[in-house]
Amino acid sequence: MLPRTPLGRASIVPSPPWHYSGDVLTIEYRTDPANVAALLPAGLDLAPDDPGAVAIIWADWQSCSDSGDELLDPVRSQYKEAFVVVRCTYAGETYSRCVFIWVDKDFALARGWYQGYPKKLGQIWMTRPVGVGKAGPRLQPGGRFGATLAANDRRLAEVTLTLTGESDTGGFVNALPMLHSRYMPSIDPAGAAPLDELVTMRSRDVELGPVYVGEPTVTLFEAPAEELAALEPVEMIAGYWRQVGATFAGGTTA
Amino acid sequence: MLPRTPLGRASIVPSPPWHYSGDVLTIEYRTDPANVAALLPAGLDLAPDDPGAVAIIWADWQSCSDSGDELLDPVRSQYKEAFVVVRCTYAGETYSRCVFIWVDKDFALARGWYQGYPKKLGQIWMTRPVGVGKAGPRLQPGGRFGATLAANDRRLAEVTLTLTGESDTGGFVNALPMLHSRYMPSIDPAGAAPLDELVTMRSRDVELGPVYVGEPTVTLFEAPAEELAALEPVEMIAGYWRQVGATFAGGTTA
Amino acid sequence: MLPRTPLGRASIVPSPPWHYSGDVLTIEYRTDPANVAALLPAGLDLAPDDPGAVAIIWADWQSCSDSGDELLDPVRSQYKEAFVVVRCTYAGETYSRCVFIWVDKDFALARGWYQGYPKKLGQIWMTRPVGVGKAGPRLQPGGRFGATLAANDRRLAEVTLTLTGESDTGGFVNALPMLHSRYMPSIDPAGAAPLDELVTMRSRDVELGPVYVGEPTVTLFEAPAEELAALEPVEMIAGYWRQVGATFAGGTTA
Amino acid sequence: MLPRTPLGRASIVPSPPWHYSGDVLTIEYRTDPANVAALLPAGLDLAPDDPGAVAIIWADWQSCSDSGDELLDPVRSQYKEAFVVVRCTYAGETYSRCVFIWVDKDFALARGWYQGYPKKLGQIWMTRPVGVGKAGPRLQPGGRFGATLAANDRRLAEVTLTLTGESDTGGFVNALPMLHSRYMPSIDPAGAAPLDELVTMRSRDVELGPVYVGEPTVTLFEAPAEELAALEPVEMIAGYWRQVGATFAGGTTA
Repeated sequence: MLPRTPLGRASIVPSPPWHYSGDVLTIEYRTDPANVAALLPAGLDLAPDDPGAVAIIWADWQSCSDSGDELLDPVRSQYKEAFVVVRCTYAGETYSRCVFIWVDKDFALARGWYQGYPKKLGQIWMTRPVGVGKAGPRLQPGGRFGATLAANDRRLAEVTLTLTGESDTGGFVNALPMLHSRYMPSIDPAGAAPLDELVTMRSRDVELGPVYVGEPTVTLFEAPAEELAALEPVEMIAGYWRQVGATFAGGTTA
Repeated sequence: MLPRTPLGRASIVPSPPWHYSGDVLTIEYRTDPANVAALLPAGLDLAPDDPGAVAIIWADWQSCSDSGDELLDPVRSQYKEAFVVVRCTYAGETYSRCVFIWVDKDFALARGWYQGYPKKLGQIWMTRPVGVGKAGPRLQPGGRFGATLAANDRRLAEVTLTLTGESDTGGFVNALPMLHSRYMPSIDPAGAAPLDELVTMRSRDVELGPVYVGEPTVTLFEAPAEELAALEPVEMIAGYWRQVGATFAGGTTA
Repeated sequence: MLPRTPLGRASIVPSPPWHYSGDVLTIEYRTDPANVAALLPAGLDLAPDDPGAVAIIWADWQSCSDSGDELLDPVRSQYKEAFVVVRCTYAGETYSRCVFIWVDKDFALARGWYQGYPKKLGQIWMTRPVGVGKAGPRLQPGGRFGATLAANDRRLAEVTLTLTGESDTGGFVNALPMLHSRYMPSIDPAGAAPLDELVTMRSRDVELGPVYVGEPTVTLFEAPAEELAALEPVEMIAGYWRQVGATFAGGTTA
Repeated sequence: MLPRTPLGRASIVPSPPWHYSGDVLTIEYRTDPANVAALLPAGLDLAPDDPGAVAIIWADWQSCSDSGDELLDPVRSQYKEAFVVVRCTYAGETYSRCVFIWVDKDFALARGWYQGYPKKLGQIWMTRPVGVGKAGPRLQPGGRFGATLAANDRRLAEVTLTLTGESDTGGFVNALPMLHSRYMPSIDPAGAAPLDELVTMRSRDVELGPVYVGEPTVTLFEAPAEELAALEPVEMIAGYWRQVGATFAGGTTA
């Protein structure tokens, strides 16, 4: 990706594959399916079962390219993100689809645009579980976690999760291959977009830690340059915390 | 641009036209022309005259869309940038071309990617002239300005400018229509890039303040994920400070 | 101030005097005087006239020590702040007193604690007037300015100012010598504070630009670790924009 | 601490006790003892054994007051810090003493000033160990960690640690009660400091995870408003990684 330079060292993000290890807090809830449908482009339809299901997810990642060099300069490997996933159908298949996402580093933003994640910058925080001391929850029943998202100096979302036990599943909304739109308008505002394609991808080499499940709360806030709050919760499903390792090595046009 | 939503309000950047008003500090110097050539893609050639000329520029902008709403919520209208421009020829014409650029807001990053500016995030600072008090230079001979750029917690560039008088010109390196490459790799790392086009654009409704000229210094620093320092100065040309107003309303494929 | 080192170069802020040049947007309004009284420590009383008057102020500063070295490394000289001033009487005199203040740099925070300003960190933005282009107001009737304050990822205050003309005064609430409390609790939470003193100070070498006056709006927001919103506006007085230069060279214990 | 408000909710930091849980990376090395002596105020002497020993430490903390409310709003409970500890003797006792420290939140800065830690703001990063995936080291021999410190847009320190095994000790330099100077100059620059006291403190309710030990590297960089680089390493001792839980509930004047 740009900038393209003699040594290839200055690109906003090194070439894939990209490896990820991190903590992921997922909350699933239901909104009016019309709110989901309103976010799908022409040609994509609501999932047939539980069409109003939404996952709002916080992740605290460490990531690197194959060289792993970024891991010793962690300003270039750590980032946090908060994102919203729904499901949709296309050509007879059901997919997961990210409709909103905020990250706090430019390399993560660029990767997202490459993958069709509609990334913007935000401030993302999530409680960490701890093993010693009094300043944090344990990964056990009663452990309480909070996570928040802000952008442009406004709080956009707050969630909490109170653990009740372990689980075999980490949720179903973000569990399918992703179907994303990559889109770049023409330099001529009246022209057709030179990049407007559906792509699909899935992680490989996925390594998962145990899943902790619990009772969630979700609060979304209005903001002038956001539409997240339109995905108003009407019913909570569940919340999950787990560690995730994965590798991204590309996808295909759909 | 993404994300595309029912109200069109959540896009990382509102639709053009985009209006800009700001302070611009430009320093022009010469590097070995081979350093410029190394940054030009196939099909672009060095400018015939003064082929090693480089402009390194700091700008402190306020910008908005036609509605102007962002001006009352300045977190969404103010940003700073530092960028490097060289010249090149293509199809018999000479153009300006931005080879490196750092900004400090996501909306500015997205605009850059739309326009072919290879934007990354950085921390950008530049001395402001003042009209009262002892904490700043005046726009008059002897006024001293500094400007700095950092990314990933490393200082990348420092410049100074000591004013000597006024000038009829604000420099020649960044004075031509821009010729940029818009580039997005395939989602399949082995595939051809679905977006790889040369675009050209120029500002309209340009309104310029008086130009102050002076003696510059430029220091560039090495960093592991940057190649800016390869544009090593061998001779200073001059430095300029001026206020600039302009509107961007699109370009054309070259 | 700390840290104290062999060369004296590492202190969080260089030694005074400190020089300031900047843009200041002041909005004056009235709240219930009981809200002001609730913020005054024992021994201080409400001002006899207009006791509920409040000034909420945004400033975009450039500052430096006598050496002026910081001006060429502007990350160390520029900062923004938003603060709230009320008036009070002590020992028969009427003073201005800052009750809340947020800044965006550590050197400014440290200076505040030295001076008895109760500084915390925040994100501060204010519209800049421009001289060219369409992306900003002019300093003339109809010019519209916005300013915002956030802390801990929450918006705390938003104001607007629409200019109506020029003025001979820049307001009366922040126009008196300051009376501040410097306070540091004992390292033993049960012990008496070893620093608990009233201090007074005023700027010297004040150089002022013309005052622009207009119609303001003020909106304050609740937040869990703030009490700013308790200063609820009941009546607007006026708003002002001006450039200010000043020097701080110390004060006296009151 | 300031600001002091009717509900006591707006203070820059809630009242102690303060609880901490976090990851701590400690590197111990030797510098010329004269470099340590130069940082000790009158009345404090070098430790008799290994007087040039220095610990440079990175910590990624979660912290809270007794209420624990901050844990669900993690922007108010998480912070990172990098700090330097030496040893000294006073009145016949040997103490640890923090001579430089940078944090990335205002509540942590304020706590430091209360405790005599000479805190400034910085950007702090440290590699996290991971349990799944390829994007991070494991807590086992061969695991490689990096940590960096920047302030004012300049890199100040970089360290690495390559684990070789487990250890019974986490180092000796930061293992003693702390002896700090709390210092606030007079508001009259010519006056005597109204707060200039030695204080001592130690954590209570300390809960420690296993210690991982390894081979460190340390690189310090010059900067115009810093003196960290004067503590030049001449010999590495060892590096350690461990999880630490502790409570601070006050200290005593020395």
